[in-house]
Amino acid sequence: MAKLTRDFFLDLDRLDALAPFRDEFYLPDGLIYLDGNSLGALPRVAAARARDVVEREWGRDLITSWNRNGWFQLAARLGDKIAGLIGAEHGEVMVCDATGINLYKLLSMALDMRPDRKTIIMEGSNFPTDAYMAQGLIRQLNRGHQIEFVEIDTVLEKITEDVAVVALTEVHYKTGHLLDMKLITRRAHEVGALVIWDLCHSAGALPVDLNGCQADFALGCGYKYLNGGPGAPAFIYVARRHQGRAVQPLTGWWSHAAPFAFERDYRPAANIWQTATGTQPILSLAVLECGLDILCRANMADIRRKSLNLCDYFIDLMEIYCADFGFTCVTPRERQCRGSQVAFSHAHGFAVMQALIGQNIIGDFRAPDIVRFGLTPLYSRYVDVWDAVIGLKNIMEQGAWKNPEYHRVTTVT
Amino acid sequence: MAKLTRDFFLDLDRLDALAPFRDEFYLPDGLIYLDGNSLGALPRVAAARARDVVEREWGRDLITSWNRNGWFQLAARLGDKIAGLIGAEHGEVMVCDATGINLYKLLSMALDMRPDRKTIIMEGSNFPTDAYMAQGLIRQLNRGHQIEFVEIDTVLEKITEDVAVVALTEVHYKTGHLLDMKLITRRAHEVGALVIWDLCHSAGALPVDLNGCQADFALGCGYKYLNGGPGAPAFIYVARRHQGRAVQPLTGWWSHAAPFAFERDYRPAANIWQTATGTQPILSLAVLECGLDILCRANMADIRRKSLNLCDYFIDLMEIYCADFGFTCVTPRERQCRGSQVAFSHAHGFAVMQALIGQNIIGDFRAPDIVRFGLTPLYSRYVDVWDAVIGLKNIMEQGAWKNPEYHRVTTVT
Repeated sequence: MAKLTRDFFLDLDRLDALAPFRDEFYLPDGLIYLDGNSLGALPRVAAARARDVVEREWGRDLITSWNRNGWFQLAARLGDKIAGLIGAEHGEVMVCDATGINLYKLLSMALDMRPDRKTIIMEGSNFPTDAYMAQGLIRQLNRGHQIEFVEIDTVLEKITEDVAVVALTEVHYKTGHLLDMKLITRRAHEVGALVIWDLCHSAGALPVDLNGCQADFALGCGYKYLNGGPGAPAFIYVARRHQGRAVQPLTGWWSHAAPFAFERDYRPAANIWQTATGTQPILSLAVLECGLDILCRANMADIRRKSLNLCDYFIDLMEIYCADFGFTCVTPRERQCRGSQVAFSHAHGFAVMQALIGQNIIGDFRAPDIVRFGLTPLYSRYVDVWDAVIGLKNIMEQGAWKNPEYHRVTTVT
Repeated sequence: MAKLTRDFFLDLDRLDALAPFRDEFYLPDGLIYLDGNSLGALPRVAAARARDVVEREWGRDLITSWNRNGWFQLAARLGDKIAGLIGAEHGEVMVCDATGINLYKLLSMALDMRPDRKTIIMEGSNFPTDAYMAQGLIRQLNRGHQIEFVEIDTVLEKITEDVAVVALTEVHYKTGHLLDMKLITRRAHEVGALVIWDLCHSAGALPVDLNGCQADFALGCGYKYLNGGPGAPAFIYVARRHQGRAVQPLTGWWSHAAPFAFERDYRPAANIWQTATGTQPILSLAVLECGLDILCRANMADIRRKSLNLCDYFIDLMEIYCADFGFTCVTPRERQCRGSQVAFSHAHGFAVMQALIGQNIIGDFRAPDIVRFGLTPLYSRYVDVWDAVIGLKNIMEQGAWKNPEYHRVTTVT
């Protein structure tokens, strides 16, 4: 192994084919930002794009923008761009609503397609909003469905013939564990179940091959690795073979077969537009496109390679410099088993992360004891990994985390 | 009656207490914009606000903005501002999602609260997305609910003891007819039904007194009279006496009693937060606040007075100058029976409106034969009414609407 010095990491940055992408993002001077898995950084062009949408499209063109500036097609056009990042085809992805709402739509469709089965498989340790949405739907349907909560090591054996749908998040929000989409999807199909993949921590972070895995449904987030801005609309994927079959229940006029016929009764669109609901927040949609356009120019294999390197080095350096400070790595060392983040449990994780943030090194904390670092190859540098770990080492050596000011605040996944 | 000349209308503008508000909006030179009931005009401060959210809050403060810049509270804070416009109290309104989704939530709650009743009253001629959403919910629930479509003259007699919920739009999107919220709500309550008011064409356009009418539920749109920008998030109102009772089914983590406890199982918030779902598009939310802040400084009685005047003069001038051209006014002349728009049927309404738009006078067309003009007192001028009607007269006299270029395009309500 090469000698791991700060200069070594600076050299890696000089050799990095993705390094020029960092200039396309604004990042504050002196900040080491390792939280792009919670909120992606600002593409520099987004400021001008937001201004153009506000001043020209809204202010000057007003209502005519629906046609003149392509607002009607925006959700589908962005969907097609995301499709290229997740192994889907044009016409299989829309951008709309929030992730939880999109899960609700897909879960409802999947349960409709398996009317005799009552079990939903979900991961108990997942970020809870997916389970909450499923619980809301189950109560709504009142047909005796139940969630069977599994964990990663039992998921395959729990996918049995009474399972209607398996709804899993591909990359775990805490540990960064990457599930085997192909294997799990195949297992589900073998027993006649459907699969919904939550790609919140996958899309834009690593290669995803929905169609190659014969996935049924998927959804994901616009504001993490897609760099779409705070609360950017989410996306939803329906494999073409399922389009025109099940109907998602939030049947607003944008999902109608002929939305401008203004018919009194609902008729579902037979394509991906059936996943739409109503008018979307155009400004937030337009800005999301800035992040997508950068990703669409990058090579996903390069992103994955750098992501794995960054994570490996982070864990290596933690073993070298922070081995005595009570951190336990909860992210798999096996490259094929992890996403684009590293996470460690620590008894005082919250205060440790606050102290680190106090040093301008931003990761985040997830209860009860996880410190989490997102590595985002488009703008994360190799030297950031060095600086973050050395910063952490200093905090632990100096006991800075014991400072009472590092008390509780709230953060968002 | 005073002599109706262009100078007369210019005089009215000089005397108009609301006239200074026009300067707070950007409107293109030479454009007469009478479509603020479809997309409200741009508040001038919105450009700077959008820039600040993008560059400072997102770009510089990044994830810390959730606390530092109040993103967590934004949906509730904006809801409180809207509350003041619609006769609700703080804590009764949230800004979230799209109108159709909010109707779905409320309708589901209302049906849950009246489990033995199967009828939903809706207006058959309403903008269809409300009915589509109800049809999606009915299919989802599969408990034998049905929509009884009524029209304005039969609505009271149709509210009988088998009715679970009356879901009506207060101001009709085509005719501008204003329903009697107090009377209809009282009638519904007399028979034990609940009422959902769709305020898409009311909020910001005229005084609304939800609590004074003892309304149960309401929702509305951010991008019409609230001037929140294209596709701005919608709002949702639940009377405080119903909060903590019925649970809306889109139970994302923002609606949990303790969202940051990350519990595995769902527990509903007992307040207005239960209507929330997931993370909202912050940029679109923030810009919506610009429109709200202007409205909050205006006097709603002044807005209503000017709105009624503008509409009256529009109809008067149509009778004087366009009586021979085949227009039939479909908006009630009685002031207490209309919102803030005027509409006319015309056999060639589509082409007529296209010709008018070709003259930089923007109203809109609603199938099959309605030309519609929204009057928005914060930025509509009295002289705009004169110029629009005279422009229309000229088009009809000259036959400009016969030009084949005025063919079909699509527009949005």
